[in-house]
Amino acid sequence: MKSDIKSERLAKEGKLKIEWARNFMPVLSLIRDRFKKEKPLKGIRVGCCLHVTSETANLVITLKAAGAKVNLCASNPLSTQDDVAASLVEDYEISVFAVKGEDNKRYYRHISSILDTRPHITMDDGADLVSAIHKKRENLAKEVIAGTEETTTGVIRLKSLEKKKLLLIPMFAVNDAQTKHLFDNRYGTGQSTIDGIIRATNVLLSGTKFVVCGYGWCGRGVAMRARGMGANVIVCEIDPIKALEAVMDGYQVMPINEAAKIGDIFVTTTGDINVIDKQNFLKMKDGVIVANAGHFDVEINLKALKVLSKSRKAIRGYIAQYTLKNGRRINVLAEGRLINLAAAEGHPASVMDMSFANQALTCEYIKKNADKLKIKVYKIPEIIDKNIARLKLKSLGVKIDKLTKKQREYLSSWQLGT
Amino acid sequence: MKSDIKSERLAKEGKLKIEWARNFMPVLSLIRDRFKKEKPLKGIRVGCCLHVTSETANLVITLKAAGAKVNLCASNPLSTQDDVAASLVEDYEISVFAVKGEDNKRYYRHISSILDTRPHITMDDGADLVSAIHKKRENLAKEVIAGTEETTTGVIRLKSLEKKKLLLIPMFAVNDAQTKHLFDNRYGTGQSTIDGIIRATNVLLSGTKFVVCGYGWCGRGVAMRARGMGANVIVCEIDPIKALEAVMDGYQVMPINEAAKIGDIFVTTTGDINVIDKQNFLKMKDGVIVANAGHFDVEINLKALKVLSKSRKAIRGYIAQYTLKNGRRINVLAEGRLINLAAAEGHPASVMDMSFANQALTCEYIKKNADKLKIKVYKIPEIIDKNIARLKLKSLGVKIDKLTKKQREYLSSWQLGT
Amino acid sequence: MKSDIKSERLAKEGKLKIEWARNFMPVLSLIRDRFKKEKPLKGIRVGCCLHVTSETANLVITLKAAGAKVNLCASNPLSTQDDVAASLVEDYEISVFAVKGEDNKRYYRHISSILDTRPHITMDDGADLVSAIHKKRENLAKEVIAGTEETTTGVIRLKSLEKKKLLLIPMFAVNDAQTKHLFDNRYGTGQSTIDGIIRATNVLLSGTKFVVCGYGWCGRGVAMRARGMGANVIVCEIDPIKALEAVMDGYQVMPINEAAKIGDIFVTTTGDINVIDKQNFLKMKDGVIVANAGHFDVEINLKALKVLSKSRKAIRGYIAQYTLKNGRRINVLAEGRLINLAAAEGHPASVMDMSFANQALTCEYIKKNADKLKIKVYKIPEIIDKNIARLKLKSLGVKIDKLTKKQREYLSSWQLGT
Amino acid sequence: MKSDIKSERLAKEGKLKIEWARNFMPVLSLIRDRFKKEKPLKGIRVGCCLHVTSETANLVITLKAAGAKVNLCASNPLSTQDDVAASLVEDYEISVFAVKGEDNKRYYRHISSILDTRPHITMDDGADLVSAIHKKRENLAKEVIAGTEETTTGVIRLKSLEKKKLLLIPMFAVNDAQTKHLFDNRYGTGQSTIDGIIRATNVLLSGTKFVVCGYGWCGRGVAMRARGMGANVIVCEIDPIKALEAVMDGYQVMPINEAAKIGDIFVTTTGDINVIDKQNFLKMKDGVIVANAGHFDVEINLKALKVLSKSRKAIRGYIAQYTLKNGRRINVLAEGRLINLAAAEGHPASVMDMSFANQALTCEYIKKNADKLKIKVYKIPEIIDKNIARLKLKSLGVKIDKLTKKQREYLSSWQLGT
Repeated sequence: MKSDIKSERLAKEGKLKIEWARNFMPVLSLIRDRFKKEKPLKGIRVGCCLHVTSETANLVITLKAAGAKVNLCASNPLSTQDDVAASLVEDYEISVFAVKGEDNKRYYRHISSILDTRPHITMDDGADLVSAIHKKRENLAKEVIAGTEETTTGVIRLKSLEKKKLLLIPMFAVNDAQTKHLFDNRYGTGQSTIDGIIRATNVLLSGTKFVVCGYGWCGRGVAMRARGMGANVIVCEIDPIKALEAVMDGYQVMPINEAAKIGDIFVTTTGDINVIDKQNFLKMKDGVIVANAGHFDVEINLKALKVLSKSRKAIRGYIAQYTLKNGRRINVLAEGRLINLAAAEGHPASVMDMSFANQALTCEYIKKNADKLKIKVYKIPEIIDKNIARLKLKSLGVKIDKLTKKQREYLSSWQLGT
Repeated sequence: MKSDIKSERLAKEGKLKIEWARNFMPVLSLIRDRFKKEKPLKGIRVGCCLHVTSETANLVITLKAAGAKVNLCASNPLSTQDDVAASLVEDYEISVFAVKGEDNKRYYRHISSILDTRPHITMDDGADLVSAIHKKRENLAKEVIAGTEETTTGVIRLKSLEKKKLLLIPMFAVNDAQTKHLFDNRYGTGQSTIDGIIRATNVLLSGTKFVVCGYGWCGRGVAMRARGMGANVIVCEIDPIKALEAVMDGYQVMPINEAAKIGDIFVTTTGDINVIDKQNFLKMKDGVIVANAGHFDVEINLKALKVLSKSRKAIRGYIAQYTLKNGRRINVLAEGRLINLAAAEGHPASVMDMSFANQALTCEYIKKNADKLKIKVYKIPEIIDKNIARLKLKSLGVKIDKLTKKQREYLSSWQLGT
Repeated sequence: MKSDIKSERLAKEGKLKIEWARNFMPVLSLIRDRFKKEKPLKGIRVGCCLHVTSETANLVITLKAAGAKVNLCASNPLSTQDDVAASLVEDYEISVFAVKGEDNKRYYRHISSILDTRPHITMDDGADLVSAIHKKRENLAKEVIAGTEETTTGVIRLKSLEKKKLLLIPMFAVNDAQTKHLFDNRYGTGQSTIDGIIRATNVLLSGTKFVVCGYGWCGRGVAMRARGMGANVIVCEIDPIKALEAVMDGYQVMPINEAAKIGDIFVTTTGDINVIDKQNFLKMKDGVIVANAGHFDVEINLKALKVLSKSRKAIRGYIAQYTLKNGRRINVLAEGRLINLAAAEGHPASVMDMSFANQALTCEYIKKNADKLKIKVYKIPEIIDKNIARLKLKSLGVKIDKLTKKQREYLSSWQLGT
Repeated sequence: MKSDIKSERLAKEGKLKIEWARNFMPVLSLIRDRFKKEKPLKGIRVGCCLHVTSETANLVITLKAAGAKVNLCASNPLSTQDDVAASLVEDYEISVFAVKGEDNKRYYRHISSILDTRPHITMDDGADLVSAIHKKRENLAKEVIAGTEETTTGVIRLKSLEKKKLLLIPMFAVNDAQTKHLFDNRYGTGQSTIDGIIRATNVLLSGTKFVVCGYGWCGRGVAMRARGMGANVIVCEIDPIKALEAVMDGYQVMPINEAAKIGDIFVTTTGDINVIDKQNFLKMKDGVIVANAGHFDVEINLKALKVLSKSRKAIRGYIAQYTLKNGRRINVLAEGRLINLAAAEGHPASVMDMSFANQALTCEYIKKNADKLKIKVYKIPEIIDKNIARLKLKSLGVKIDKLTKKQREYLSSWQLGT
């Protein structure tokens, strides 16, 4: 079994981490128990390009329990937990190609290694694996039954491919499952972004002006938690409906160039580029903190910042302090990469539990329906979605009501009135 | 001009109310100004079955300014503001058939009066008007170009008709516009339900166990505001995904029969029947308060409650106190009808501003596209939706960002990666 | 029995109101039951100058049950509930001198009527009764055993008297009891101020800029609830420590003259004069709403506003719309008087339950300790305070922990360390 | 210069940490600038027993700048940042006796080392230094001008000494300054406790039952922030007034033995012993998390837990997992020591800024008033308190209002009335 990881000797610590995460992933555990008996993925090669964390470990272990042959590489050069990678290789005999802090060249070599295994199913977090197939290894596409995609960003890319009729593979937008994006993007990103910022800086959020760029699910999660920590939140948006929602939620809304003048902390969650740009940096106060919670490290225009700066100094673990020519200092966290994965531990396990339950059940669905799939971007079947919610509630000990026969009838009638 | 209202002499007070509401309806005002010039509804008969409030008044005035012939009846026997009705008749020369507290017979006679005018466009709030056409005046359908529907409840009924292939008229689900349901159902119902309960009871919400049945947009609005007033909120649901969201939002979630034992205040927001039923009443503590914020007065099973009770006593304006045979007292607000309209003034004008801007612009759209419409339930065109949000932000003095060319390109590309 | 009220015929409705309030005043009810047996105030004349509401009714009924002879006048010309006054006279045989909307002359005549009864105990809400004694009826002081004062404002006045050595009577600062000011001023004023503003205007709070002047207990209650309704709250303060707390609580803090430019709604809660003054009105946007939640109607400088205005128009029940010479309109609620009492029903009964339990138990304490009292401003004995909290928890069905013997020992030791 | 630290080689990293913290301590920086010129502590030996963190470093540097001779030891065996200690020794020439994880013997030896320097002023965080003087080095007391105490816990111990007439030294309760306990205990402990729990466990707080024992300033800070992260908070209390406040703030309140059955996460913030005790552990669900945010590690009865357990296993950095004989697992964080200092970085710098500004200015006050001090527990003079708030607001760029002459007059008058 080939692998490329930091060091096998980290396996012991990694194993404890994986087991700790498992405690908070009861839904995935129930699925794994069933998969172990039924082996629904027997003979299937799954190529995964995911953040190599203790939660992901539990997903790939589940896939392996289902009979799949799993190969894993990182979906981000900074997000790998080296000890987890080691344990997967040593304790679970899963091939892993991922080293925290790897350079771009090694990162893409790792993606290649996964493609070399000729996967039947691809699993992406940002669409890098499937993009690589589309860009330079088109011949692999015919062997791929279907792929799954975890993120908003990735789904945007896939839909762009689909629209341009360039898509080669049936794809499942796991991100669009309700048990995924309603929870992971909001509660997961919300908490872990705050966590990442605090770990990196130990700044008191209470009383700060906290600017959130983008009021999608991630953005509103971050805004909600920042307010929950006592910050005075300002939202920047380009969509009028979302902007209006932010206003109605009690936040100040203004263009980024206005927010730049008064903010203490800035977080980008848009999926777009140059959200914080040259003219914004020039407006900022001395000592501000700038971080990104979007998938790619393109949201903060670091190139522009470098041009504006006379010096750059590393402070603490994840802080680079740029001193502008105007004398003001701007503290950029984690080089503008995903702050929650870089400086903290990514989404908590109990949120990933549902996202990855979607991944696991979608793999099973792909295998079962291999013959019927068309080349398009699919939604996750609603039955999978609701089933996961039901399992999660059960694991939390929460009971809910059921419709009575009479109530069901009423809902489907149109004649009953005032 | 025929009308049936309480008394013309109330017109003066009603006029002040209508003008006061207008202050908070800047979007509709902008539309009215344009309609006055362009007369896009010239020659069109619009039959409206809506809550007769000061906000609705501004809508029908806008339609009239557009050249329409407007006739208005109530969509709920308790929600009419008699002074507003009077002013519409006296000051604005619009036919109104609505008297607060009218009995069922008069209510349906008023609906008939509207149908007698042979509307080209129907406008519903709960689908009573369009249901009447489907039930007993099918011959009118051919003259109707299309209808609009304001509520979740009404849209459910229309979709049921559509599914059963019984729909006779193209219908527009105004409720499903984002600038409608995201705002009206959540912020509007949220505030006005709390307002209705406090006006009816003057109860301190802080520290109470506040049970919300249903965690749709209305339910989460009510839950959010009840918490905002210091209540300890409990949510009851039948949908596992919504239930899980309520858990993640920090609420307790449990079946209604458990909540019945500990709740101090109960509010239903489900669109279904018998949400609070016989067995629940029997579990309740002495002195609880029960109210409905759903469209119809079917959510609280009052028939069952009457059977369980040994006496019923009217207290204050909107409270009926039932004393059960077990000695405990249950205070039902507004006979289980919409509490925010019965005991308070319904949604605030600034929320209705957007809902009714959708109504007005959809009427214009129906007229323009009369030839192309099919018999189905339509969504509101996105361009109308975003336009309304933009006008609202403008009226609030809120500026937002625009995508740069480069950002737009990035969003539509698929090749840019890590 | 002499009285001066609006009309005896309102008694029936008033009686229902008093009984409804009683449901939410379990602590006072327990005290009344005991007083009825023990008659601790036998032969005592109590002169009360309080807001004549259904909650106050329950207090004076309790005092009467204790054997006292009670006379009641209003502590504010606008806050009287005429039906409650009628019921007190008709059903409970208590003298009342209070008519909603009475002019200043009648207001002071009513205070005189109370003084004419030569009270042994005075009970004030704003210190008007006791001020009248100090100003012009000093001879009455010698018969007064002691007085109680309900409000922050009143206590400030009493301490000023005490400091200047002009105080003639032992006074008890009921306001300073924890079960009073922590609850009444914060949760009571918080909810009822929001309630008053919504009843008067039906404005949607969500998304408004809501300016709170003063961040004492009342101000933070109002700010907390306004935020809870979705407003974007701005705080104005003169005390640096309170201002800093407001910042840390996530609010914007700025001088009133800055807030004047951007606010949509303004509420004063300071206890001081001219908090919103001439130069502020000139900065305000068109259509703003201005209200007062402080005790006296001096916080908004209406005289200055009148000078600036070219017209004044009554709109709806409690709104006076001033049109400035600059064309902008300012809507003043309830003539700048206490908005929660004028436009709503004052504090909810369950909050007044504790305030008035303090009043009742303090009267008993005064009688018992008549010989020992000195001429000074007293705090409420802690044992009364804690006892009330305990009774309230009991009535809510809430159980709490008790210190074990070992825990008590630990707390009183100093030797135990790291 | 004598010292006992982990390693001088950590100095470089420590220096960066100290400088980073300084950015968030503008008030202390202003004081240091003045002290550098005025040297108000010239010739004074200050013995400090404080958490050795980057914030404390800035305090002792400030004292040294004032001309004092400063010696520092840890106030908790687990809270020392070894790199900061190294930098203080290497870069700032301050004696430090502190090693993270030191055993009890070494801990007390370090306290002795400080006492050996015969301090003029003692500075405590938990009263260990001053207790040592009272227990076994009474002879040192006569040289001590006065001491300061940072914590609630310490102040309780000092007041116990004072009450028993055993106090030997004038002491200043820095904890009781408003700019200390209103901010540090609430906002500081609130955020850093949440931070510590997340760093130790990466648990998702959203949707958990989060039990807070104690609703003092620390407890309400933790409760507020836990709710802000989406948890469903349950409060346990022994004081009826605080319990009632928690109810009114919308939390569930119940005895710990009830909460034990349903909680997912437990935090103690009481200052008392055995708050979570044997019978509570037996009620807990499998997999719960238990942490302490109170000063001493006595709040969770670990001895009792050990007796109940069949095994104990270390998981991740700060988690000890106890498996009870009933099979359920209880995860105790940081051995029951202060979670925010052990697993996170203690209070953020901007909160300590104010606490330590109080410490610095109180030292100056002690020196100036050395002759007048009596042996008692002093409050911090109000002028110091307000001055610090003013400096903090200034550093945040927040402006506030000033009373006009007329407003000041009004507040001090008693004659103005309704």
